[in-house]
Amino acid sequence: MRMRLDELAEILDGVVVGDGSVEITGVAGIREAQEGDITFLVNPKYESYAATTKASAVILANDHKRISKPIIQIDNPYLAFLKAVRLFKGDTQKVEVGTHPSAVIGKNVKVGRDVSIGPLVVIEDDVVLGDNVALMASCFVGPRCRIGKGTFVYPNVTLREDVVIGERVIIHSGAIIGSDGFGFAKDGEVYRKIPQVGNVEVGDDVEIGANVTIDRATTGTTLIGRGTKIDNLVQIGHNVVVGENSIIVAQVGISGSTEIGKGVTLAGQVGIVGHIKIGDYAMVGSQAGVTKSVPSRTRVSGYPAAPHEVSKRLHASLKRLPQLLKQFKELDKRVQGLEREKEDAEASKDD
Amino acid sequence: MRMRLDELAEILDGVVVGDGSVEITGVAGIREAQEGDITFLVNPKYESYAATTKASAVILANDHKRISKPIIQIDNPYLAFLKAVRLFKGDTQKVEVGTHPSAVIGKNVKVGRDVSIGPLVVIEDDVVLGDNVALMASCFVGPRCRIGKGTFVYPNVTLREDVVIGERVIIHSGAIIGSDGFGFAKDGEVYRKIPQVGNVEVGDDVEIGANVTIDRATTGTTLIGRGTKIDNLVQIGHNVVVGENSIIVAQVGISGSTEIGKGVTLAGQVGIVGHIKIGDYAMVGSQAGVTKSVPSRTRVSGYPAAPHEVSKRLHASLKRLPQLLKQFKELDKRVQGLEREKEDAEASKDD
Amino acid sequence: MRMRLDELAEILDGVVVGDGSVEITGVAGIREAQEGDITFLVNPKYESYAATTKASAVILANDHKRISKPIIQIDNPYLAFLKAVRLFKGDTQKVEVGTHPSAVIGKNVKVGRDVSIGPLVVIEDDVVLGDNVALMASCFVGPRCRIGKGTFVYPNVTLREDVVIGERVIIHSGAIIGSDGFGFAKDGEVYRKIPQVGNVEVGDDVEIGANVTIDRATTGTTLIGRGTKIDNLVQIGHNVVVGENSIIVAQVGISGSTEIGKGVTLAGQVGIVGHIKIGDYAMVGSQAGVTKSVPSRTRVSGYPAAPHEVSKRLHASLKRLPQLLKQFKELDKRVQGLEREKEDAEASKDD
Repeated sequence: MRMRLDELAEILDGVVVGDGSVEITGVAGIREAQEGDITFLVNPKYESYAATTKASAVILANDHKRISKPIIQIDNPYLAFLKAVRLFKGDTQKVEVGTHPSAVIGKNVKVGRDVSIGPLVVIEDDVVLGDNVALMASCFVGPRCRIGKGTFVYPNVTLREDVVIGERVIIHSGAIIGSDGFGFAKDGEVYRKIPQVGNVEVGDDVEIGANVTIDRATTGTTLIGRGTKIDNLVQIGHNVVVGENSIIVAQVGISGSTEIGKGVTLAGQVGIVGHIKIGDYAMVGSQAGVTKSVPSRTRVSGYPAAPHEVSKRLHASLKRLPQLLKQFKELDKRVQGLEREKEDAEASKDD
Repeated sequence: MRMRLDELAEILDGVVVGDGSVEITGVAGIREAQEGDITFLVNPKYESYAATTKASAVILANDHKRISKPIIQIDNPYLAFLKAVRLFKGDTQKVEVGTHPSAVIGKNVKVGRDVSIGPLVVIEDDVVLGDNVALMASCFVGPRCRIGKGTFVYPNVTLREDVVIGERVIIHSGAIIGSDGFGFAKDGEVYRKIPQVGNVEVGDDVEIGANVTIDRATTGTTLIGRGTKIDNLVQIGHNVVVGENSIIVAQVGISGSTEIGKGVTLAGQVGIVGHIKIGDYAMVGSQAGVTKSVPSRTRVSGYPAAPHEVSKRLHASLKRLPQLLKQFKELDKRVQGLEREKEDAEASKDD
Repeated sequence: MRMRLDELAEILDGVVVGDGSVEITGVAGIREAQEGDITFLVNPKYESYAATTKASAVILANDHKRISKPIIQIDNPYLAFLKAVRLFKGDTQKVEVGTHPSAVIGKNVKVGRDVSIGPLVVIEDDVVLGDNVALMASCFVGPRCRIGKGTFVYPNVTLREDVVIGERVIIHSGAIIGSDGFGFAKDGEVYRKIPQVGNVEVGDDVEIGANVTIDRATTGTTLIGRGTKIDNLVQIGHNVVVGENSIIVAQVGISGSTEIGKGVTLAGQVGIVGHIKIGDYAMVGSQAGVTKSVPSRTRVSGYPAAPHEVSKRLHASLKRLPQLLKQFKELDKRVQGLEREKEDAEASKDD
């Protein structure tokens, strides 16, 4: 595909500044872009690339200062870039409709229209697949699972029994959905397994990263709300409830029965204890260890997690502590000096 | 199934308080329970649900205060709940005995009675499977592995060569047992692989979570002791030895050659360096970074891990530090004041 | 195999001290070794085993003090041990050349000489496999992947489309290479997926651990440099670039677009934010949270990561803080005492 910059701007609903006749033939990140590509610039860390990128044009936010290249000005450059990528690259995942002869399909499986079932997929009994579902190679779909329309499942995904997946969900390779919750009853020295007889439900438009694990509920349902995006290697415990449109970055761990609100951001490697609530739109900083509930629209960080401003102040104070220890010693000496003098004075009075 | 509360109490070996004629038809968590369900209450965080749960009866500890519903009083409510779940829900995992025709079985494989080998399972040469073993879809069992009686392996598990699994073990999907230890010899700038020629042995009644990785020993054996329970996404390095009946929560990492005692609890996201010992019944707090050996029956937390009381005191002190810095400044000024006065006094003496 | 110690010393290019006629029949770690085995000793923590090991001989560094057993003295005992393991144990992974009939092979797949394609492997269209490549059971190789000579892929590995793997690479079970990067554009409350149309390239002699995830670039390439070794459960984000001969220990997370230099060591559970640079030969301590770029040849630790000496000093200071708080109170009282006396003195003057 090729088009003029001003044609592209019209599609993206942006405004050209500079030469609108430049021909755009592709789309790339600012560091990788070559002549003919359009790129975008949002992250201030990449400002310096604006001068050196080989891209023929750049998508910029309305309030961004002009650069020497032709640009498209727009409210949301990320979104515009997304549209440009779709336009120039298309959908890269093409799968063939139909069932590969090597797939193993159970009894009473209901399959919608235009479904793709890849090689060596295993589908157990009583599964329901909506229209346009794609299950790539070697996926396992347990008994009684239901998968909504347009959901795309990459190779080697495991859905245990009774898992319910919404529409347009994307599940990446190696994800395990519906594994047993980690529940045991202590019986003397020994732990006895508490059977995990609940399930997992995943809302529409959720994305689940590679090698993520989401445990089924002990009883009831572990819930992932509509539109939530989960990065790789995240652990979600039994009976956790995650709200809508939340972001859970790689390697986060959420313990059993905790509730995550909507619009929440959990940064990378965060750990959250069980049985607490993270309020709507809360933000938890990377590697934070959250030990108690977090109110809505607040930001916490550190271990144990505290309001971000408090954590920052504590850390800033800590940096001054070695100096304080020295100064304290000096002050102590000065006070000793004053005390000695006083004693001397009193002694001389006594004379 | 349905039974009267007093009948259930007899089976569970508990005491009914309230109306023993209530009919119980199911079992559920306190938040999910509906009429006819029995539930249980142990976690103080859920006390408030005692008033609002729709459950028809509640299992409570002997020392718990009475509530308005009919209850079963018992020593260990967790254990009683476990039994109730088994009673009402049965074993949810039913697998067909026999070998699915799509499975690929090597030479000299010994298979016990009533074994289930699912679709697309691969079993290499010289494997031994005990009675009642279940291998679900797409598992890989490497050469010379031995799996004990009654062990249940969920789909997509990988057992590398020479792994030995005990009896009644449960292995969840995506677990990798017997991957190479991370061992390299530095040769100038370059790292040369040290072949990992040991194996892994897993004791009876162990449970291994989804996407767990347990590395084989360099030489000798990586050992997981009988009755130990391992949550999802845990990493266990080469030559690690874990004792009996320990609990390893999600995303813990244990470096090579470290020894974990029996009855130990490692909370979520703990990291432990290599070549140390964690004593019997020790407890390590979530996200702790353990850099040296931990004595038996102690509790450590923080980074680097210290006795929990010490960590708590340090943290409490840290919270007072910003205030201390201010107070120090003021005190310094007051001492300056005293010093100035003294100088003035001396100066006036000199006059 | 069996040989005299002095024969082995000659092969390893080391010097025998003690009885060179001792017969060596195997190789093992110092704790596991039996009579007839040779072992090695480098880690000071294992010094005490030198007296108790049943090994018939020990490989020691040139500068190590003598022990009572026959030894081979050598510059690099790790490397010598590696060679001894290879000598006595051989290559334990033997795979059959050829394609298993259960494998599913796409169109236009180019296969080199002596390639092994295991049972239930899926290879999509237009893949190129170099000579001596081994793909073990149930691996998935996406469209247009290229795998270099002598690369060994363990069971259940997923390579998504367009991934390029170098020569002599080792990929452990459960690894996912080329999963989508975690990129979304916010559109009001909702996150829209940014298509991830780049790929992943892995250099020669890289090792990738079990259940590792390496995301494909948004556009361009996520790069793992030649000779780098990656432990289990590591997460590498989109557009990350890792240099040559770096070591990435288990459960590390590297966020998008960060650059890791060559010869870098990232210890276990480290987290690194996106869009920064870790300089050549830098060392990052376990569990550190790196929030800004790290200069070459420096060592950082802690959260947020600071130069290791600074982190250590801060921690040492912190341990003195509870005591300081007490001392401060006392000093404050002493100053109050001085102030009171001064006031009394002034009051008496006024009299």
